[in-house]
Amino acid sequence: MTDTNNNLDGAPQGPRPLADALEETRARIRQTLDGVDPALTDIARHLGQSSGKHIRAALLLSAAADDDSRVEPDAVTAAAALEILHLATLVHDDVIDDAPTRRGLPSVQSQFGKKTAVISGDYLFCLCFSMIAGMSHQYPEQINLFTRAISSLCIGELNQHKHNRDSDLSILGYMRIISGKTAALFLLALYAGGLLSGASEKQCRLLGRIGFAIGMLFQLVDDCLDYESTSDTLKKSVKHDIAEGVITLPLIFAMRQDPALKQLAARSRLTAVEIREAAATVMQSGGLSKAREVADSYYRRACRLLEQLDAPVKQQQIRQLLDQIHTRRH
Amino acid sequence: MTDTNNNLDGAPQGPRPLADALEETRARIRQTLDGVDPALTDIARHLGQSSGKHIRAALLLSAAADDDSRVEPDAVTAAAALEILHLATLVHDDVIDDAPTRRGLPSVQSQFGKKTAVISGDYLFCLCFSMIAGMSHQYPEQINLFTRAISSLCIGELNQHKHNRDSDLSILGYMRIISGKTAALFLLALYAGGLLSGASEKQCRLLGRIGFAIGMLFQLVDDCLDYESTSDTLKKSVKHDIAEGVITLPLIFAMRQDPALKQLAARSRLTAVEIREAAATVMQSGGLSKAREVADSYYRRACRLLEQLDAPVKQQQIRQLLDQIHTRRH
Repeated sequence: MTDTNNNLDGAPQGPRPLADALEETRARIRQTLDGVDPALTDIARHLGQSSGKHIRAALLLSAAADDDSRVEPDAVTAAAALEILHLATLVHDDVIDDAPTRRGLPSVQSQFGKKTAVISGDYLFCLCFSMIAGMSHQYPEQINLFTRAISSLCIGELNQHKHNRDSDLSILGYMRIISGKTAALFLLALYAGGLLSGASEKQCRLLGRIGFAIGMLFQLVDDCLDYESTSDTLKKSVKHDIAEGVITLPLIFAMRQDPALKQLAARSRLTAVEIREAAATVMQSGGLSKAREVADSYYRRACRLLEQLDAPVKQQQIRQLLDQIHTRRH
Repeated sequence: MTDTNNNLDGAPQGPRPLADALEETRARIRQTLDGVDPALTDIARHLGQSSGKHIRAALLLSAAADDDSRVEPDAVTAAAALEILHLATLVHDDVIDDAPTRRGLPSVQSQFGKKTAVISGDYLFCLCFSMIAGMSHQYPEQINLFTRAISSLCIGELNQHKHNRDSDLSILGYMRIISGKTAALFLLALYAGGLLSGASEKQCRLLGRIGFAIGMLFQLVDDCLDYESTSDTLKKSVKHDIAEGVITLPLIFAMRQDPALKQLAARSRLTAVEIREAAATVMQSGGLSKAREVADSYYRRACRLLEQLDAPVKQQQIRQLLDQIHTRRH
């Protein structure tokens, strides 16, 4: 496992153009997955097939860019580690949710069984820490940044689980859940990127706040898309939040308008007709557009914070990703 | 989470007597579990109820003892982190095995559900890394020692799972499984202890080899006890290895004597009568005593290696624990 910390053979040792860094990060992820113990080869190959968008890596690299649009090799390592961490959480999420598919392919759990999924998730966590540990001499804070983000993530997931089918979940309760389960990792991405570019403590904190706002936006958009899209366009899962008992902001707003929805939200085993009707109600009651407004407010907050950032390249790169997240339709 | 790295209020800052260190480690584990996020309070309290024997912590501390029988505060942190890591693996093991009980209490999974068990295991992994990261400035190798041990553990578990009900599992295959799933953590305990006491690289390696032998002994004894003991005396689980399809050395030896056992070992859903009869056959065929002989050989190897250790206090302390492991009857 120690060689996962090394650069790719032939990869440049010094700063490299940001434009190449994301491709290099993808290669590093592939290389890391290819280099696992034979016991995990099949699973790693399976995970390597569905690559995802690597939005977290792209954000980290953007925050790590210097004024000449170059990033240090350590940033590539951290970006790859962050995506592997994200992969670990997805594998465990699928165990938790008994999800049949992930990114359009069978989930690790459905393909290889629960045992393998739990263990290979643990292994991926470990890979992530191993990669980060490879940089910890120079950046001893990195490990703690990662452990803190994962803790937040676990707590967010636990709170979400506690409030499963809780039709009384407050807006604040919902915000607290998504700040842990999603925004903490985006905060980490931007903060770590800043740190690895040698940015000041103040600038790193600002980047972290921008990351947090982007993460909140990301999850809010996700939760809105869940009601807008059908399972055909949203690859992540054929299961809808309301069917899974996951209470999100569009539903919380809608339940305030239409208390009849509360009974549906609290029930398990909804029929396909009930799910469709509930989704229609959420849209018609204005719940969805209100949630979109909250998402927009996080978009604007991220924009405002970005303007305070005294680093034009980072600013421009992050803005581009922010706009993508804001306007994505699947 | 950051304050888990600090000492207990009022705990001495310098080296403390080995005799106090294990109690302090227990207190640190309790303190760490008490200090978790409110979302995890119930689970942490539940885990704190069944304390376990802390054999890994005791081994680490023994290897960390100086010639005056004193250990550095960092050794207490590492010992507590190691036990929390062990706890994390137990929580996930129970998810994997659908185990109803653990250490005589309901498992986290059966008490709080699968979702909570998967997430709280992840959280405990994280706690462990966080504690280790707190010492990584001085001992940057520690994180990598831990990640390497966890990787071995995952690979051991995956291999065990792959060979579930595999009546053709070879002795070597079995040895490879237990070297990963058990011995790697014992190796870590002694190596890390040595490192934290300022021992030479050569001495640390020797300690690691002693730890490995003790770990192999530990698992072999465990696997023999599984056939010797009834569910009343073996608290860990009411499930027997053969019923779970876990192929261990006593069974491998016995299958060579009595090929009829192979069909039983390959089958699922054994009846209570079949399990009892299989256990009797394993004992009568000499499979158990042969496995005991292999365990004894690891005991002797550990003793021989210990004699090479040029550190009388470590030697004596480890020897005491080694003898306990060798002679334990439950």
